[in-house]
Amino acid sequence: MIDNYYAVIMAGGGGTRLWPLSRKASPKQMLPLVGERSLFQIAVDRLDGVFTPDQIYVVTVADQADVLQEQCPEIPAENYLLEPMPRGTASVVGLAAVALQQRDPQAVMAVLTADHIFQNEAHFRKLLLSAYDAAQQDHLVTLGIAPTFPSTGYGYIQQGDWVEAHHDLDVYQVLRFVEKPDESRARAMLESGDHAWNSGMFVWQVGRIMEEFKRQMPDLSSKLNEISRVWDQPQRESVIQRVWPQIQPETIDYGIMENARDVVVIPGEGLGWNDVGSWEALFEVLPADEQGNIILGDEFIPIETRDTLVYKKSSPRLIVTIGVEDLVVVDTGDVLLVCKKDQAQKVRQVVKQLKDAGGDYL
Amino acid sequence: MIDNYYAVIMAGGGGTRLWPLSRKASPKQMLPLVGERSLFQIAVDRLDGVFTPDQIYVVTVADQADVLQEQCPEIPAENYLLEPMPRGTASVVGLAAVALQQRDPQAVMAVLTADHIFQNEAHFRKLLLSAYDAAQQDHLVTLGIAPTFPSTGYGYIQQGDWVEAHHDLDVYQVLRFVEKPDESRARAMLESGDHAWNSGMFVWQVGRIMEEFKRQMPDLSSKLNEISRVWDQPQRESVIQRVWPQIQPETIDYGIMENARDVVVIPGEGLGWNDVGSWEALFEVLPADEQGNIILGDEFIPIETRDTLVYKKSSPRLIVTIGVEDLVVVDTGDVLLVCKKDQAQKVRQVVKQLKDAGGDYL
Repeated sequence: MIDNYYAVIMAGGGGTRLWPLSRKASPKQMLPLVGERSLFQIAVDRLDGVFTPDQIYVVTVADQADVLQEQCPEIPAENYLLEPMPRGTASVVGLAAVALQQRDPQAVMAVLTADHIFQNEAHFRKLLLSAYDAAQQDHLVTLGIAPTFPSTGYGYIQQGDWVEAHHDLDVYQVLRFVEKPDESRARAMLESGDHAWNSGMFVWQVGRIMEEFKRQMPDLSSKLNEISRVWDQPQRESVIQRVWPQIQPETIDYGIMENARDVVVIPGEGLGWNDVGSWEALFEVLPADEQGNIILGDEFIPIETRDTLVYKKSSPRLIVTIGVEDLVVVDTGDVLLVCKKDQAQKVRQVVKQLKDAGGDYL
Repeated sequence: MIDNYYAVIMAGGGGTRLWPLSRKASPKQMLPLVGERSLFQIAVDRLDGVFTPDQIYVVTVADQADVLQEQCPEIPAENYLLEPMPRGTASVVGLAAVALQQRDPQAVMAVLTADHIFQNEAHFRKLLLSAYDAAQQDHLVTLGIAPTFPSTGYGYIQQGDWVEAHHDLDVYQVLRFVEKPDESRARAMLESGDHAWNSGMFVWQVGRIMEEFKRQMPDLSSKLNEISRVWDQPQRESVIQRVWPQIQPETIDYGIMENARDVVVIPGEGLGWNDVGSWEALFEVLPADEQGNIILGDEFIPIETRDTLVYKKSSPRLIVTIGVEDLVVVDTGDVLLVCKKDQAQKVRQVVKQLKDAGGDYL
């Protein structure tokens, strides 16, 4: 282990892209989507060997904290940091940075997601170690993912000059961040060979990111300082409660990364990374049978059914499919979704529609 | 009304082709599939003007009789004839023939289905009247349906020489009955112009059909005579109970019609007939919205969904479809069926599989 290296898992998301399975009360990271353990538990498990549980922090919102703590009791209770309400990833990083700076001014923090899958976790750990070394060189490090297909679902990072290498992994300057592209643009970036997917994970010294907050988000920075001053005092909680509602929601990407100085990227290869960002993405990480079907749940009769995912929450109900292919069938008891696989991202439309209609089924 | 004309509605079927909606305990004819009234009620309603309720008989099995009587209380209770168990349509016809012969030796009986739809009911009534006249000429009359497409789902009747006409409808000799054909054969018969679909409905004098039973099914005939002898006596019920289990199951088509003498057919035209024999067939008789969707039930959100039928039994459940077409989605609470429209007849495979597995969900 490295004494001053800390993991910060962002676990406050209320992701709606796996609706109707993921809900406000049980977001994606809490769900055992790919086995017995939840995505959050998997995200913690794969840090083994790089961080001790004591070095792992979790930032979440109050109403999710209990379940997450139950799922990973090995992480000390005081390492669960609670936002009163979500204010975007910039403030998540800020809150964790305050906590770490109080504990260890030399801290290097890895900002990690709670709901992604790495099929090759050893590669991921090596990426974390090389990012630590790069962060010690004062860089703000983004963990990139070498693209394997022209995805229109991820943001991209254009790599500039080679900077250095750590643990056999090359580190490049970041030329620019590119938003989710259309297909032709995605294809061009894939072919260019100098673009990586933006995983939304970062590694940096806590002092460096505080410096960037001060320069680029002075308002958030002063609020974080307010909290920092009372961190070890009884009023910490009440200050957070008072300050948090005033924070302007912002992502770390827009708020900091796009205009930060000395940003580098390490394009991770062979990670088997999947952000499980849609029902279609889930297809890629689950084992299928000979017909390409993925069955999660019992009591299912498939007749001439191919490349279809059926998810059923335990309930005494029989599901029968006949003559269908490339379909997603999700039965949560209160909601039934029948969706063509390649249009699964449109569940977001449904979620919006339900929100506008009063919030049932969310 | 015609004094000696009687309708016999065969309502004992346990049809499985609209499974999971139709069940052993609630077969197709009991269900309000195309409006507020059940198919059985519709089958009774459309006889208005040709038969008085007193002239209508219903043959069914014991465990369906209560619901049917509740649905059509205008038919006298004694006109509901109960089979102890199903033994095919030959014995259904036989039991009704016994009852009618006891009541009126000159009876002409129309053997009718309980679960078909006629969009033009006036045409159907005219067909019934012309069939009565033909039956009075000693013919065994089959009600044909002039085919409108090369169906592979129905049996056909090849017409021979013209015999006579009643109520402007032509009556033809029957050359032969043809089983459900393959597609090229169906197309050839459609083009021939001398084939009608076999609706499974017949009209004849009760004496004529008794004669055919005696000649072609002597065993059934003697059992029917046994019942006939005690029809007005207290032991009628116990004799039926004793005799029925010994009857060899047989259809009227195979048992009688194929080798009967003087069989004629009246090919009905413009009836808008539909046997509602599958989920696909149900599409044809239900009104669709602009996207071709047929929605039976509330709480449904269709996103880019076309030509899809959604049936939901009232339950607090939301159904969402995204990017699908030509699909049948049936949610009965305990069973969920998702089926490509043109493969809907394969629910029979499922029913067989469930039967073999012990009979759950049937």
